[in-house]
Amino acid sequence: MDANPILAEAVRGNWVENRHRGALIIVDADGGVIASGGDVNRPIFPRSAIKSMQALAIFDRHAIDRFHHTPEELALACASHHGEDEHVSNVDHFLTRMGLSAADLECGAHMPTNGKARDALRAAGRDPSPLHNNCSGKHSGMLSVALAMGVPTHGYVEREHDVQRAVRAAVEYVIGEDLTEDRCGTDGCSIPTWAAPLRAWARGFARMATGRGLDAGHAQGAQMLFDAATSHPHLVAGTGHLDTLVMEAFLGRVMQKGGAEGVQCGAIRDKGWGYALKCDDGNMAASHAMVAALLLRHADPDANQKAVLEQFARQPIRNVRGNVVGEMRAT
Amino acid sequence: MDANPILAEAVRGNWVENRHRGALIIVDADGGVIASGGDVNRPIFPRSAIKSMQALAIFDRHAIDRFHHTPEELALACASHHGEDEHVSNVDHFLTRMGLSAADLECGAHMPTNGKARDALRAAGRDPSPLHNNCSGKHSGMLSVALAMGVPTHGYVEREHDVQRAVRAAVEYVIGEDLTEDRCGTDGCSIPTWAAPLRAWARGFARMATGRGLDAGHAQGAQMLFDAATSHPHLVAGTGHLDTLVMEAFLGRVMQKGGAEGVQCGAIRDKGWGYALKCDDGNMAASHAMVAALLLRHADPDANQKAVLEQFARQPIRNVRGNVVGEMRAT
Repeated sequence: MDANPILAEAVRGNWVENRHRGALIIVDADGGVIASGGDVNRPIFPRSAIKSMQALAIFDRHAIDRFHHTPEELALACASHHGEDEHVSNVDHFLTRMGLSAADLECGAHMPTNGKARDALRAAGRDPSPLHNNCSGKHSGMLSVALAMGVPTHGYVEREHDVQRAVRAAVEYVIGEDLTEDRCGTDGCSIPTWAAPLRAWARGFARMATGRGLDAGHAQGAQMLFDAATSHPHLVAGTGHLDTLVMEAFLGRVMQKGGAEGVQCGAIRDKGWGYALKCDDGNMAASHAMVAALLLRHADPDANQKAVLEQFARQPIRNVRGNVVGEMRAT
Repeated sequence: MDANPILAEAVRGNWVENRHRGALIIVDADGGVIASGGDVNRPIFPRSAIKSMQALAIFDRHAIDRFHHTPEELALACASHHGEDEHVSNVDHFLTRMGLSAADLECGAHMPTNGKARDALRAAGRDPSPLHNNCSGKHSGMLSVALAMGVPTHGYVEREHDVQRAVRAAVEYVIGEDLTEDRCGTDGCSIPTWAAPLRAWARGFARMATGRGLDAGHAQGAQMLFDAATSHPHLVAGTGHLDTLVMEAFLGRVMQKGGAEGVQCGAIRDKGWGYALKCDDGNMAASHAMVAALLLRHADPDANQKAVLEQFARQPIRNVRGNVVGEMRAT
C-alpha cells in the first residue's frame, strides 16, 4: 500500500517539524471525480463529520412529522457544538419539547469545547452535564427517532437498538453502500461509527446536496438539514471554529462539518459536489489546513471567503510567551 | 523521499483509525547501528528530549564549580516537569540559592502539566508563574551558566546571547556535528532549537552514557546528569508520565526523555547505547508507544519493567463515558 501524500506540514523557524499525510476526494452526485489524492478507497471512520447523514433518520422515521423540528433543532442534530449558552439552552428546549430531559441523553458529559464556557462553568463550581456534550443535539435527534418509532429510548446508543438500526439504514441509503460489522467501532459519544471509503462519504454529501439518486423524502430531508445547518452555523460548532466561520462566510453555498481524528466532509452546494478528507494521523489542525486548501481551490471563494479560509490554510504556531514561532500549513 | 514506516496505529473497534509514521535508531558511541528504521539522516528538532545535552553547558562553563549543583538541581535542568508542588518548590530553591527568582525566568508561564496541580492552582484562584513552566528547571540551569560566565542574565533565551552560544557549543561537541542557522527554530520556552539527524542525537546519547569520544570533563558531566535524572525520575517529568515510570523501573539502567512533537531520546546505559526517535506527525501518544516498543525489544526488561513499558506500547482509548473503545499501539 503506497503512503498517502503529505497534505499539510508544520514548520518551526525555517525547518519542517511535522508532516501530515492524508487522502481527499471531491465528487459529483453520480460519483464523477472532480479532484482526488491518496487512497480514497480505504474505509475510514467518518465520526462526527456525517451527523447530517445520521439525522436523515429523523425524516425516514417520520419524527419530523410528529415534532415539526425547527431549523435550530435540525442544525443541532447535525452539530458538534461547543457547549456555549446558546447551544445548551437550545438543546434543553429541544428535549423539553419532546417531554424529555438531559437525563435521557446517553452521550456522557464533558467540559464545554468553548474556553469561556468552560471557565464560566468552573467559576460557578458546576460539573458539566450531558447538555454540554458536543453531541447532545445529535442525541436529541436520535431520541426523537426513538419516540417516533414508539420504541423505548433506553439504550438508544447501542448498535442493536432500533434507533441505531434506523440511523445505519439512512446512512447506507444515502451513500449507496453497506456498512459492515467487520469495520465498526464506538464513537466518543457511545454510538456506533462505521468505516466506509472517502469516495462513498463524498458521494453521499453530493447526493444530499443535489437530491440526485435519492427518493423525494430523503432529498427533501437532506435539503432541510443542509439549509438548517448553513443558516445556523453557530449552532453547528461555535465561536471561532472553522465549520461555523466557513458556513457563515459562504452564505449557504457550502455545508462543512468536521469529525474527530482529522475528518472533514461537506458539500459545495451550488456546484452539486460532495467532498471528504481524512488526515492519516488524526491531527485536527492539519485537517483544517487541508480542507481550507480544498475549498480555496475548488469553491470559488470571494475575497471575504478567501480571507476566512486562509487563516486555516496557514495557522500560526505560538510559543508559551505568545510569539509566532512557526505555522501549520497546507502543502 | 520514501515515506517512513508506520510505527504506531490507533485502532477503534476492529478497524485502524490512525496511522503514525516515524524513524528511529539505536547506536553505540562509535556510531555502530544496533537497530534502525526510516530516514535517520533527516534533521529533526529534538526539542526537550536533549535537555541533558544542553545542561552540559553547566559543566563547560564551570557553573557546577561555582554553585555545586545538587543532583535535584541537575535532574531539574534535564526536566520537563509537571508543575507539581515538588517541582515548583525545588525550582524556587534552585533559583534562590543563586540569588535569583522566578522574575529572572524568560520561559513564560503556563498551567501545570499535572491535572491535580492545575486544579489546585485554579481552586486557589491563582495564575501560573514561570516556575510552573515545564522548562523552568532547564532555564534555572541556563541562568546558572550566565552567572558563571559573568554575563547579564537578561535575554539569556536569545540565540545570540552568550548562554545560548554556550549551550549550542556543548550540544555540537557531544553530537560531533555542527548545528546550522538554516535549520533553526524557537522552542516553546523561547530558546533556540536546532535540527540535526536522529543518527546524531542517538550517538550523542551513547557518548554521554559511556563517555567515549568525550573529554574527561564532558564525560564526568554527562555521568552526573544521567545519574541525577535516573535517581530523581519524578523531578524529570511527573506523576504517571512515561519518562518518570520508565526511569523508576529501570533503576538507573535507562535514561529516557521525551520532547514535544513526538520526539523520544535516551540511553540504555549498561549497554552503552543511545537511541532517538521521532513520530513524523508529532503525536505524543504514538511516540510513547514507539519508544516503549523499542525498549521492550532492546533494553532486556525484567517482568516489572516489561509491565511498565507494555502500558505505553498499548494504550487504551476511552469514550466520554470512560469505556475502552480502542487502543493506540506500536506496530
